[in-house]
Amino acid sequence: MVSAEVRLGELGVELPPPPVPLGAYVEAVRSGNLLFLSGTLPLELGVPKFVGRLGDSMNLEQGRLACRLAILNALSLARAHLGSLDAVTRIVRSTVSLATTHDFALHAKVADAASELLMNLFGPEKMPTRMVYGVSSLPAGVCAAVELILEVGA
Amino acid sequence: MVSAEVRLGELGVELPPPPVPLGAYVEAVRSGNLLFLSGTLPLELGVPKFVGRLGDSMNLEQGRLACRLAILNALSLARAHLGSLDAVTRIVRSTVSLATTHDFALHAKVADAASELLMNLFGPEKMPTRMVYGVSSLPAGVCAAVELILEVGA
Amino acid sequence: MVSAEVRLGELGVELPPPPVPLGAYVEAVRSGNLLFLSGTLPLELGVPKFVGRLGDSMNLEQGRLACRLAILNALSLARAHLGSLDAVTRIVRSTVSLATTHDFALHAKVADAASELLMNLFGPEKMPTRMVYGVSSLPAGVCAAVELILEVGA
Repeated sequence: MVSAEVRLGELGVELPPPPVPLGAYVEAVRSGNLLFLSGTLPLELGVPKFVGRLGDSMNLEQGRLACRLAILNALSLARAHLGSLDAVTRIVRSTVSLATTHDFALHAKVADAASELLMNLFGPEKMPTRMVYGVSSLPAGVCAAVELILEVGA
Repeated sequence: MVSAEVRLGELGVELPPPPVPLGAYVEAVRSGNLLFLSGTLPLELGVPKFVGRLGDSMNLEQGRLACRLAILNALSLARAHLGSLDAVTRIVRSTVSLATTHDFALHAKVADAASELLMNLFGPEKMPTRMVYGVSSLPAGVCAAVELILEVGA
Repeated sequence: MVSAEVRLGELGVELPPPPVPLGAYVEAVRSGNLLFLSGTLPLELGVPKFVGRLGDSMNLEQGRLACRLAILNALSLARAHLGSLDAVTRIVRSTVSLATTHDFALHAKVADAASELLMNLFGPEKMPTRMVYGVSSLPAGVCAAVELILEVGA
């Protein structure tokens, strides 16, 4: 079984500090074996990056970097809550929201940046389902946000 | 432990009648300890209010009132299904959708109107995770909608 | 109790082949008694149909056909994963995303095409909660996508 914590080290990936709520909510709630995480943005040391829209001011590569950064923020949150990413038995659900123009259609390519990182860290056995939306706008004007539901314990 | 039912009285907040489905679906489904609610709109006696878009025909304060009204409709639904809001052991997830222009960025401030009401009624121990989207349009043209997943019993 | 498999035959509805992932994710994850499905598009033999936006290049009837086709893809996925649709004890959640102009407001009428099919196949006892969003864009440019959370076993 792959250890996501070991893989992080092997890949030289460093997690950002866990995001703090932008309002009156919490970042993680566990109910039974499911851990729900709040939506995470592409924050670098707490500062929103990749502000703009795909198909307009943001290109494919920027979108991919934004997804990758958003998922790193989500994983940082998960680690802060669970102590270790190795407590995750399965990633159940990933929802990727992209701020896009109405004629953008490369959602899968952009969202794959988040999914591929999960694959590299957790291995194929823990891969989640996925939904990708092209939305009108996201908090702080960023072009990507991610939501995860994780399974922990059994 | 805070009683949401007592708090409603203390705050003088009255719940609207529980919304009825606008189509071929149901308003609440319980599975295990989770109660999933359908998305709720800012309905006043069943009539959609706050029709428009944030960043355009709807301002920040209208958006906040719309969120507050939508969450009151959700709580009315929860009470209708559970008998009492005090059966809620945790609010697991809140999803706030706002109809916005593409350059709107004040999602957190608007969604906080819903989150703050939950905080005032349920207390900090039951606060949910949150995701806020800026969407293109919502049913009936309203500027805000809310979805809740609640934990009930254990 | 209604058998969805029997009903499919009675209604002469044929399920399309189960969709395959467009990226680095999986199509179904079971955790406890919940089966999460990835978002499904209106695919015909794997080809995206109903490309466009409601309120613009797609009309109400096309939106309804797109929803119906997307939900058939979701059911095909569920059957591929579970062996039979009769393993579904409840449809817990349906999320319908529609690519729309910002002044579109007939979400409920469009989404009902998916909900009515579920009703016809599974009967009123298994009907899900629902949320409908009008989004800016969807993967591959389609005008509708569907996500289901199913309950299986007890």
